[in-house]
Amino acid sequence: MQILSRIDNPAMLKKMSVPQLDKLAGEIRQLMINVTAANGGHLASSLGAVELTLALFSVFDIPKDKIIWDVGHQAYAHKILTGRRDNFATLRKKDGVAPFPRREESTADAFGTGHASTSVSAAVGFAVARDLAQEKHHVIAVIGDGALTGGEAFEALNHAGGLKKRLIVVLNDNEMSIAKNVGALSGYLNRLQLSLQYGRAKKDAVGLIKNLPYLGEKALKTAAEIKEGTKSLISLGGLFDEWGFKTIGPVDGHDIALLKEVFNDAKNMNCPVLIHVQTKKGKGYRPAQNSPELFHGIGKFDATTGLPAKKSGGKTYTDIFGATLVELAQTNKDIVAITAAMPGGTGLKKFAETFPKRFFDVGIAEEHAMTFAAALAAAGKRPVIALYSTFAQRAYDQILHDVCLQHLPVVLALDRAGLVGEDGATHHGVFDLSYLRHIPGITVMCPKDENELRNMLFTALNAAEPTAIRYPRGAGLGVPLDQDLQNLPRGKGEVLRDGTDAAFLAVGSMVAPALKAAEILQEDGISAAVVNMRFVKPLDTEMITHFATTAKLLVTVEENVLAGGFGSAVSEFLCDRRLFPVPVLRIGIPDKFIPHGSRDELLADCGLTAPQIAATVKEALDGKITS
Amino acid sequence: MQILSRIDNPAMLKKMSVPQLDKLAGEIRQLMINVTAANGGHLASSLGAVELTLALFSVFDIPKDKIIWDVGHQAYAHKILTGRRDNFATLRKKDGVAPFPRREESTADAFGTGHASTSVSAAVGFAVARDLAQEKHHVIAVIGDGALTGGEAFEALNHAGGLKKRLIVVLNDNEMSIAKNVGALSGYLNRLQLSLQYGRAKKDAVGLIKNLPYLGEKALKTAAEIKEGTKSLISLGGLFDEWGFKTIGPVDGHDIALLKEVFNDAKNMNCPVLIHVQTKKGKGYRPAQNSPELFHGIGKFDATTGLPAKKSGGKTYTDIFGATLVELAQTNKDIVAITAAMPGGTGLKKFAETFPKRFFDVGIAEEHAMTFAAALAAAGKRPVIALYSTFAQRAYDQILHDVCLQHLPVVLALDRAGLVGEDGATHHGVFDLSYLRHIPGITVMCPKDENELRNMLFTALNAAEPTAIRYPRGAGLGVPLDQDLQNLPRGKGEVLRDGTDAAFLAVGSMVAPALKAAEILQEDGISAAVVNMRFVKPLDTEMITHFATTAKLLVTVEENVLAGGFGSAVSEFLCDRRLFPVPVLRIGIPDKFIPHGSRDELLADCGLTAPQIAATVKEALDGKITS
Repeated sequence: MQILSRIDNPAMLKKMSVPQLDKLAGEIRQLMINVTAANGGHLASSLGAVELTLALFSVFDIPKDKIIWDVGHQAYAHKILTGRRDNFATLRKKDGVAPFPRREESTADAFGTGHASTSVSAAVGFAVARDLAQEKHHVIAVIGDGALTGGEAFEALNHAGGLKKRLIVVLNDNEMSIAKNVGALSGYLNRLQLSLQYGRAKKDAVGLIKNLPYLGEKALKTAAEIKEGTKSLISLGGLFDEWGFKTIGPVDGHDIALLKEVFNDAKNMNCPVLIHVQTKKGKGYRPAQNSPELFHGIGKFDATTGLPAKKSGGKTYTDIFGATLVELAQTNKDIVAITAAMPGGTGLKKFAETFPKRFFDVGIAEEHAMTFAAALAAAGKRPVIALYSTFAQRAYDQILHDVCLQHLPVVLALDRAGLVGEDGATHHGVFDLSYLRHIPGITVMCPKDENELRNMLFTALNAAEPTAIRYPRGAGLGVPLDQDLQNLPRGKGEVLRDGTDAAFLAVGSMVAPALKAAEILQEDGISAAVVNMRFVKPLDTEMITHFATTAKLLVTVEENVLAGGFGSAVSEFLCDRRLFPVPVLRIGIPDKFIPHGSRDELLADCGLTAPQIAATVKEALDGKITS
Repeated sequence: MQILSRIDNPAMLKKMSVPQLDKLAGEIRQLMINVTAANGGHLASSLGAVELTLALFSVFDIPKDKIIWDVGHQAYAHKILTGRRDNFATLRKKDGVAPFPRREESTADAFGTGHASTSVSAAVGFAVARDLAQEKHHVIAVIGDGALTGGEAFEALNHAGGLKKRLIVVLNDNEMSIAKNVGALSGYLNRLQLSLQYGRAKKDAVGLIKNLPYLGEKALKTAAEIKEGTKSLISLGGLFDEWGFKTIGPVDGHDIALLKEVFNDAKNMNCPVLIHVQTKKGKGYRPAQNSPELFHGIGKFDATTGLPAKKSGGKTYTDIFGATLVELAQTNKDIVAITAAMPGGTGLKKFAETFPKRFFDVGIAEEHAMTFAAALAAAGKRPVIALYSTFAQRAYDQILHDVCLQHLPVVLALDRAGLVGEDGATHHGVFDLSYLRHIPGITVMCPKDENELRNMLFTALNAAEPTAIRYPRGAGLGVPLDQDLQNLPRGKGEVLRDGTDAAFLAVGSMVAPALKAAEILQEDGISAAVVNMRFVKPLDTEMITHFATTAKLLVTVEENVLAGGFGSAVSEFLCDRRLFPVPVLRIGIPDKFIPHGSRDELLADCGLTAPQIAATVKEALDGKITS
């Protein structure tokens, strides 16, 4: 790290030669590979964006100029070069460097992120604020071709083109996004690769840009003129010129000299500019370049071989979900599956291979995915839409307005519900019980283990109503799997253990810790019942009433925020029914954003381990807790 | 209504001549005008879409072919021709014809709607289901140029273009959407009007369509070829060809003969087709044609003069919000205002006139609007984003991920919170307390009257945190307005009336009925306190504790669903603090979707009038209610 170790601020890059920058790129890549091999992380995208970052930093003034990274998967070089080199080894560790850009971490991180397709919106905001303040700095959004499929990006491009503010959008086109890109846009971008490269065409192209008035400022007399006047060699213009952008590219995103030239040109344009940059996901590290989807977000691996570290634990909830859906789809021909750019992450790869015509990857487009699912249900299909809990937030309105208001039998499989660990605050799926429970007509289930997930999927597909099943990240409990799937009675929990002192009403991932807590309490002579509630909606009010009238303390346990979640539903019911004086202890995620760290660490931070739960209950029974 | 009265099913239109259809169009318009003059409604868009509807019904088979109307503002002719002519006079009335398409109402209503930009998503779903079932019918989405600015529409176009399913999208371009259209797309559509009309160009154009293979199926060798091969006289192609659509238009949307011809052509294309139709909003009724924004969604009016009926009641919350924001923005230069296509509806017209550079209408694009606001706040501005409560649902993820997670001082002004009346289930803003309250770091306020709305806006802009203020539709209480605005203490309510039997904890619009209910109870010798809670978050726990330990019954009252809302927060608190044995009565919107009707009727249906509240409290005090 001869060069990297000497970079104290990004401005130093401005004086470096291209060969030096190329060498620096290698050093940065090595640091990234070493750290992600040890910690896991979003390696492939960040490897692809090293030269892009170096060129941006060589041309623009950081932090005065604002660079907004979309999603943040590609921002490791940015982090390393802006004050986080020396503690980069703490990446994704508790109290360490955050997985994505984060305003609290550095002034260089202009805008925090984690969810896709927000960067252009944010850039428009920064550009507008700049112009209102009559400041002169530059605003640059860097967005991947995957994130570009998200509707918000188009809303922002439309607004930006209309406003005509000075603004640079770098389209980082790696032909991949997370999974293989989908949709018409993808085909369009691929076709462009056949066309002229910026390097060759530059002279003509820039001449054209400079001489051509903005399309919108020119009164066009005929369609023929549109053709003649603007479809220059700057070929992405076919799409983006219509949005009022001047477009440059495609440009080789690993050619620092060329990138610097292009960025310098863009700096001098007084309008929205879109620069189409082509990069290779995983660039410079053969294993990642060969398997960019595997290395998109990867756990620990061997840096030399690129082989992922062996995972401890058995099959994941995701695996079981995917396998069960394939099994059910064999007999029920109406089942179709939908993902938003996450066929691997949501376990749908096998389904996609087995039933290619019944599988739909819509791109990073959760809103469309949900309405699309609603319409499939309206047309008699049985859509199962698998999303990460945190990304389903994007489709809240569609769940309510398109699915539930029409009471359409869409099955929402919410993966990564609860604390996800190292991806941190933007990715924890700890709000779903709260944002779903209040929607009329929805059924919300949480499996206690992977076998119950199988039965819940079976149950949901047998019912004819909107149903969400939320399950955690990572390995299941390793329980045996039912071959004959069970239809679970709607709105009914199951008593796993009886007891008279405390009664645990637990949901999903918290059933197992509750059971363990009950055992710990047993050792102290405290008798605790444990109920696997299974349903957050409808609530098993009979069960709650039984324990409210027999136990000395009700304990709700959930891996969701306490506000508006499962314990909240129990509180509402107890108050409504005047089921006093049974005291209630609500255990769950507190009312704050939980940062990154390992899932186990974060669960412990929230008091959600079995010993902590047992201790909290003991204190409550001793009358020591009144919140 | 000589012709209209004889139409028993839409298939009858197929045999009618164009002059007959033109005459029918006039009769349909007359019925629409008469009914909306009496009932109010979305007149202007529906007037613009009469010939379009007649032409669609003349060419396609309803309900076998699926027509999906985006937003549903333009669907009155559709309703009149599909079984709802004879009860059309009940439009928007309680138990009458619904304001928008609704699956429960007719098999002709393929997909329900109310929120914008979902039609293409739904159409893709229907087309996919059709092809899986090897059926042959047609699927047609009709989307306005305004709804096209919503990101979900682009997500769907991208998916549709990639899938290459047979599918027709009619772009109903009335150059207006709700307010004057904004964004680059709007400029693009305007420019197209200068280009050739379908009528003239048709011969060449259709020839080109038929002979040209789909752009995506052709390997294009150079950018020059893209230009040569596809930018034909079919000029919308500049934008939509890139999405894999074949495009036709612009077509005069009031020329039934031409429309029929175009639709018949489109029927025979085996790919996604986009038909650009130009219509006049308000067509055929001079007052609506001259003031399309006024007649977009209008209350009762005089059919002869077009003059709106005089509104009873004083200034609306919307008016007061708008005036106060202008007032505050005079001294605080950092204030900027954002609307999503609703400058009139949200009261921001005066602001836009006074501070044109600080006002941003982003189009129907709530997601972008929210992230844009977050970035403006990050750059030191004080953005106030005014949305209807129901439309803010679209931005739930952005509120959480971009605004609150970064703790940015965005002020969310949520208009039309609570029951909105005649616009019905899709438009009631009865979920916001539930979808906001569980987000960490947000402050949620509800004004008891329009003067308090002024003070809350002032308070929110003095604070430095994400804040939502939700207020109801319609006239304020007519209270005097403070000239010196007050900074309200954070998280503190105010006792409006003391009492010992019951204590009302009321929020927003329910404070006044609670006060009246307390007076009614007084007559029965029941002493009831009334607290204006002001804040749903943070909760005034001191206040609740006081009344929980002094009153015999706590009564929470809110115009929000009971699940997860304000009363839910109170229940959580009482359970957490073991504030037993005070019983709680939660009054609010029940766990079901509330249909359309007048606001007063719906409030009564939900038991939210003062006499109903008083009666419910009396029963509870008598021990007669245990939910």
